[in-house]
Amino acid sequence: MRDFFLLPRFSLFLPFFVVVFFFYFYAFQKERRTKMNGSVNNVEKPNKYFDKKDKADFLYHFGFGVDTLDIPAVFGDTKFVCTGGSPGRFKLYAEWFAKEANIPCSENLSRSDRFVIYKTGPICWINHGMGTPSLSIMLVESFKLMHHAGVKNPTFIRLGTSGGIGVPPGTVVVSTGAMNAELGDTYVQIIAGKRIERPTQLDSAVREALVEVGNEKNIPVETGKTMCADDFYEGQMRLDGYFCDYEEEDKYAFLRKLNGLGVKNIEMESTCFASFTCRAGFPSAIVCVTLLNRMDGDQVQIPKEKYIEYEARPFHLVTAYIRKVTGI
Amino acid sequence: MRDFFLLPRFSLFLPFFVVVFFFYFYAFQKERRTKMNGSVNNVEKPNKYFDKKDKADFLYHFGFGVDTLDIPAVFGDTKFVCTGGSPGRFKLYAEWFAKEANIPCSENLSRSDRFVIYKTGPICWINHGMGTPSLSIMLVESFKLMHHAGVKNPTFIRLGTSGGIGVPPGTVVVSTGAMNAELGDTYVQIIAGKRIERPTQLDSAVREALVEVGNEKNIPVETGKTMCADDFYEGQMRLDGYFCDYEEEDKYAFLRKLNGLGVKNIEMESTCFASFTCRAGFPSAIVCVTLLNRMDGDQVQIPKEKYIEYEARPFHLVTAYIRKVTGI
Repeated sequence: MRDFFLLPRFSLFLPFFVVVFFFYFYAFQKERRTKMNGSVNNVEKPNKYFDKKDKADFLYHFGFGVDTLDIPAVFGDTKFVCTGGSPGRFKLYAEWFAKEANIPCSENLSRSDRFVIYKTGPICWINHGMGTPSLSIMLVESFKLMHHAGVKNPTFIRLGTSGGIGVPPGTVVVSTGAMNAELGDTYVQIIAGKRIERPTQLDSAVREALVEVGNEKNIPVETGKTMCADDFYEGQMRLDGYFCDYEEEDKYAFLRKLNGLGVKNIEMESTCFASFTCRAGFPSAIVCVTLLNRMDGDQVQIPKEKYIEYEARPFHLVTAYIRKVTGI
Repeated sequence: MRDFFLLPRFSLFLPFFVVVFFFYFYAFQKERRTKMNGSVNNVEKPNKYFDKKDKADFLYHFGFGVDTLDIPAVFGDTKFVCTGGSPGRFKLYAEWFAKEANIPCSENLSRSDRFVIYKTGPICWINHGMGTPSLSIMLVESFKLMHHAGVKNPTFIRLGTSGGIGVPPGTVVVSTGAMNAELGDTYVQIIAGKRIERPTQLDSAVREALVEVGNEKNIPVETGKTMCADDFYEGQMRLDGYFCDYEEEDKYAFLRKLNGLGVKNIEMESTCFASFTCRAGFPSAIVCVTLLNRMDGDQVQIPKEKYIEYEARPFHLVTAYIRKVTGI
């Protein structure tokens, strides 16, 4: 008789339990998707309009399109896309790599003066200018380039310069994540007048492999968060800009705050780079050398020969890793 | 007896009236300061730290400083700084101007590969790359350059390309103001983790003079608001990017909304350009040719010879204005 009453009483709660179960399952799955490093689960569906318009697509800032260049023939074997701000440095990096690996270096393949593009075997060297807007153009057109070339899953690595926080000049920071100027771990976009925030994960496997190579090659490597500012002067609390309506102590308080949050360096592209490569499902890493310790000053004051040596460190680290992985 | 009682009763309200009067006076003055076009009242005080550190100042992204170049000798006679995105176009503009005015064109005066700098008489031609972060660096270092050169009150003009909204390709838009991606008439900066918004006024006298010259020279000129996006693809609701998680109808709804707000074109630098020149107290104007009507498509599809003609229109307009003003 007791059993007879228990069952209906319990069954009244059944729908409630089912709802709770599905809610937890959904929340857990969502969190898992968000937290996975370089997770393939985050990959966005292809742009349905882009696929329709595919045949006539022109990469405006690269100066060529599917109608004007045999993209699969030139870029079809790509495995790595290395990128960074300066056009001159990326020409030099491509030439150095070709010489080291004893393979040919292409001419500048860009047909516009907005970016330079070099190719050495399966590695593309493309500069991205300064700041996330310029980088976003270069990344979108590089992703379209890889799509047209039929390249599956290329690895993107940003090799840059940065201002260090609490690390000596010359340290190579391999980023664990990218933080925006509002101190959130997202990339903020404004689309159709609305604010959209997306995660800024980076691939942990590529990062760990890079750190290992750094240790093997005696390159001073550290891991830590990278803060992405939208300008070089006020956005990084420099005191040597034209405008400065804050005080010296505000600058140090801000740098100490960043340091407390695990930030090792500041540059101007990391959030967009991490977010876009993550959305596309491409493994990626950010490798920036620090040219100064911002706790000591705002201007780069290392001797020229040191500057040249430091500027080459991300190249030495990343190419040693690429040569180890590809056997080139 | 009645008078005796009236006075004290009235005097009880006196402090209240005084407060209201000062509040209105302050609010009115503030609004006046904000609304004045290119108002000198907005000019910020010089950076106190910069003045202290003046002697050793190095313009990092121009590759020279007060110790490595006689800045007053080279830049002391500057009256106009013309700027725009592409380095190649600005080399060409400088060479064209020198030829037209029959004066010499300098070599590239930049000692870094981040920007190019040419000089033809009292006009500097400096490119700024793509997006507000890159422009902000160029402007801060140009303002510092003018300061070191002893130049008072230079005029800054941005000559760019843009996507038009509801105007035919080839139209030269002289901006009446700059609107950010969130549709506010401000430039948004994040400084020390905090959001700061500043007005984006442009000089009405320079604008009117440019429109007048356009009419004299039969260049198709329009005035209207310019929207500043932080990227070329999603930020401008293009359908031909790698990512696109909105629908075609969302794009048109957004463009119609902008059109309704008086926006004639979209580019990627106007808010920062207007805000920084206004803060420095320098007269400024934005002159962008439209390369397409975004209501008709997303890719630039004009024939090469038309493209070259359109790209030269801001040059023809601005240099006719400068030659008229300077008598060169």
